[in-house]
Amino acid sequence: MEVGSASHEKAGLIARGWWWLMALPKNFMAKIVKVLNKIKNLAKDDPRRVIHSIKVGLALSLVSLFYYFRPLYDGFGDAAMWAVLTVVVVFEFSVGATLGKGINRGIATLLAGALGVGAHHLANLAGEKGEPILLGILVFILAATSTFTRFFPGVKARYDYGMVIFILTFSLVSVSGYRMEKILELAHQRLSTILIGGSTCVIISIFVCPVWAGEDLHKLVALNIEKLADFLEGFGGEYFGHEGNDGGDEGPAVVVTKDDKSSLQGYKSVLNSKASEESLANFARWEPCHGRFRFRHPWKQYLKIGVLTRQCAYQVEALNSCINSDTQTPPEFKKKIQEACTKMSFESGKALRELATGIRTMTHPNAAEIHLEVSKAAEDDLKTTLKTALLEDIDLLHVIPAATVASLLVEIIACTEKIAEAVNELSRLVKFKNIDPTVTPEKPQILHRGTVNPVLDTGSPAHVCITVSELPAADHSTPAQLPENANKTHEEPMKGRHNLEV
Amino acid sequence: MEVGSASHEKAGLIARGWWWLMALPKNFMAKIVKVLNKIKNLAKDDPRRVIHSIKVGLALSLVSLFYYFRPLYDGFGDAAMWAVLTVVVVFEFSVGATLGKGINRGIATLLAGALGVGAHHLANLAGEKGEPILLGILVFILAATSTFTRFFPGVKARYDYGMVIFILTFSLVSVSGYRMEKILELAHQRLSTILIGGSTCVIISIFVCPVWAGEDLHKLVALNIEKLADFLEGFGGEYFGHEGNDGGDEGPAVVVTKDDKSSLQGYKSVLNSKASEESLANFARWEPCHGRFRFRHPWKQYLKIGVLTRQCAYQVEALNSCINSDTQTPPEFKKKIQEACTKMSFESGKALRELATGIRTMTHPNAAEIHLEVSKAAEDDLKTTLKTALLEDIDLLHVIPAATVASLLVEIIACTEKIAEAVNELSRLVKFKNIDPTVTPEKPQILHRGTVNPVLDTGSPAHVCITVSELPAADHSTPAQLPENANKTHEEPMKGRHNLEV
Repeated sequence: MEVGSASHEKAGLIARGWWWLMALPKNFMAKIVKVLNKIKNLAKDDPRRVIHSIKVGLALSLVSLFYYFRPLYDGFGDAAMWAVLTVVVVFEFSVGATLGKGINRGIATLLAGALGVGAHHLANLAGEKGEPILLGILVFILAATSTFTRFFPGVKARYDYGMVIFILTFSLVSVSGYRMEKILELAHQRLSTILIGGSTCVIISIFVCPVWAGEDLHKLVALNIEKLADFLEGFGGEYFGHEGNDGGDEGPAVVVTKDDKSSLQGYKSVLNSKASEESLANFARWEPCHGRFRFRHPWKQYLKIGVLTRQCAYQVEALNSCINSDTQTPPEFKKKIQEACTKMSFESGKALRELATGIRTMTHPNAAEIHLEVSKAAEDDLKTTLKTALLEDIDLLHVIPAATVASLLVEIIACTEKIAEAVNELSRLVKFKNIDPTVTPEKPQILHRGTVNPVLDTGSPAHVCITVSELPAADHSTPAQLPENANKTHEEPMKGRHNLEV
Repeated sequence: MEVGSASHEKAGLIARGWWWLMALPKNFMAKIVKVLNKIKNLAKDDPRRVIHSIKVGLALSLVSLFYYFRPLYDGFGDAAMWAVLTVVVVFEFSVGATLGKGINRGIATLLAGALGVGAHHLANLAGEKGEPILLGILVFILAATSTFTRFFPGVKARYDYGMVIFILTFSLVSVSGYRMEKILELAHQRLSTILIGGSTCVIISIFVCPVWAGEDLHKLVALNIEKLADFLEGFGGEYFGHEGNDGGDEGPAVVVTKDDKSSLQGYKSVLNSKASEESLANFARWEPCHGRFRFRHPWKQYLKIGVLTRQCAYQVEALNSCINSDTQTPPEFKKKIQEACTKMSFESGKALRELATGIRTMTHPNAAEIHLEVSKAAEDDLKTTLKTALLEDIDLLHVIPAATVASLLVEIIACTEKIAEAVNELSRLVKFKNIDPTVTPEKPQILHRGTVNPVLDTGSPAHVCITVSELPAADHSTPAQLPENANKTHEEPMKGRHNLEV
């Protein structure tokens, strides 16, 4: 019996082995298909990647001409390899990164070369025995101090590569000088081949389908604001729509909306955008005037907008977890705040979209102001609703989730205002075109509705005071997104001054 | 008159120039002092920076011995410079980064060298005229494809440097082979000098005051959790304390607390910790077994904990803006929820601190469970309070800010639970020591208070159901942070099952 099972096992093993062997080409093919798909997606996501790869190949082939043509080769000798080396190391995806690395490499080589020659001469004075000791000490001191310098955040961000090349060149020149007599020639050869390699990179990266880090930063900042706008515009429908279904016992309806919801998750990438924004800004500073950007474009202002956008994204993240939580807010209470909340969310989303469009097209975002006003008017409506809400048959516990949504929306409107301020500042700095906004039918009414007085001396710089003169119930034209079963519960006119303190 | 003013102006100009000239050494000194201070701070923040700089200097001095001693120099000739170059480029701050770069460089050089020799032989077959053309095409194809490969996220994270060196070596070997006959010797020299340079770096970085990326990641993850704990432990006192003062008209009191508040802002750095955590994890994977970490330590689990920590930090950020907003919540309502909210915040902070300590000391965080239980009991208290709260003289509008705080705290407790789960998973993977927690006086009471039944089939995996059997009012021993004027408003015993749905 045992022998039988052993032979059985063996047969099974062989069969499995055979099966595995047969499956090998299939698995291999499947893997290849997977990799090919990945390549296709990478290329499709950003076709500039393919172009960049071709550009690098081109630059390298061009520089290797040095080796193939005897007249060029005779001029530089083996130093020609520094040109190849420079191209491989310096050629980066964007013009700014390439320029930054090229300039860093060039200047660092020049400085370190000169210092190295000096060190060599100094060491010569120390006699045959003292020379290597003195050189060793000099290399140690320079390498240690330069390495420490790389820890300065400012140096790290812009001159890190230069510091590496500085240490490298100094060590090479001063140390190899100990053997070679023609040290000046070496330094000169190295510098000129680096210049040739570097300028090949820079010329190809600028003139063959250039990728500008500055433009990428410009687009990224606008895109991030747009992603928040996507969420906010869809939030009202998502939250109140699906919660409305939740009130009845329609289980499956919830599942469907949870699937749809994935379209709202674009904002998640905004949360971690700091690193890429900062590196783009660092590259952009090296770039010359291009397209709509001048040499000293205020890239720092983009970073400022980026910080505020992330600030807003954190609030959106908190709002998003309100969608996810299995709340049991009574539908009658929800209906009360639905219109105002949907409008606040939708209109601040609209404002953000206008700001993004303003950045993208470099026009002053006049329309954003209008949407902000509407969203703030909706905020006032909400407050009126809340002030007058009767809580007879509802306990506070069940009101809280919806109240949190309202409170977060108020915070988001404040964030949107800050973003608008920062974009206006950018518009001022860059002199965005000022195009009269297409006059929407609501605009004149809204401008009549109140005047905005910035409150300067109450210690709350982020908030503004709106004097509401009158608030006709008729002009609450809510955007299309609103579900039809929305109740209008804010027919009471608001009077007097209200601080936006929620 | 005009002449007079002109001469006056001229005199003023000279005086100003003189003043500027006199101030020059002073300004220069001030700048030097500023830089020196910066250096001091950089070194004080992390003394390993100074040690690292010295280590780099040491490695470079060691490697330059090749040039100084004739027997060594004669063996390698000019190829000795590759050793210097390797040290400068490969020596990184942490062992993992150095090892990763060294291994990348070594393997890439080996592979590309072999391929380069092959390409050289292949090109030889094409005849004198065909050779440069064929070589050019080969270099172009290899450079372009390798450059494209660098866009794969997986390659970018771990093998980016290897790809650069691969392109570099292949171009150098295949192209320079066109001139040199001793191509194999060149490849061999280059490889062995790189090995010498690389191993010098690795040996020094491992054996002289090593900086382990893995250990840094370990500490960073624990530190980030601790920063959240700092905030949550301080939040109750901060929010209710300063709001309590706000109720009366004591303006200056607010200013004082706003100054104190800066100590709570440590969590801000958690929000943007993704990039540094991920790069540390990438480095850590290269590191051999060291201290309490084995070679294949589950670094990915740290990243998972990091993601959840940031998730919690976003909620904390929303909570923080509640401190900042100039709320006008009626003090009587605030007092009602003060005890429960303070306890929720304090105890979830305590739980986080236990989790951080657990990670740091690699012991199973048993005590965290207890604090979580207490915070969840406080959550139930809060719900009872809210359910029974009488809102006769308070309108909903003014309740909302405090209600938002409560709601965010509930969300934070849920986040804390998820972090606890992830840390327990880490504890299981790494086999943390299981030390019996020091039995706090409250523990037995709390364990009697309810049993925790995970709800598995209701679609809300993050929530648990607590069956509360009885809730004696006596055991609400609130932590020291609580202000003395806290009202006890939750004396009603809770009965039956409650879903934590807020």
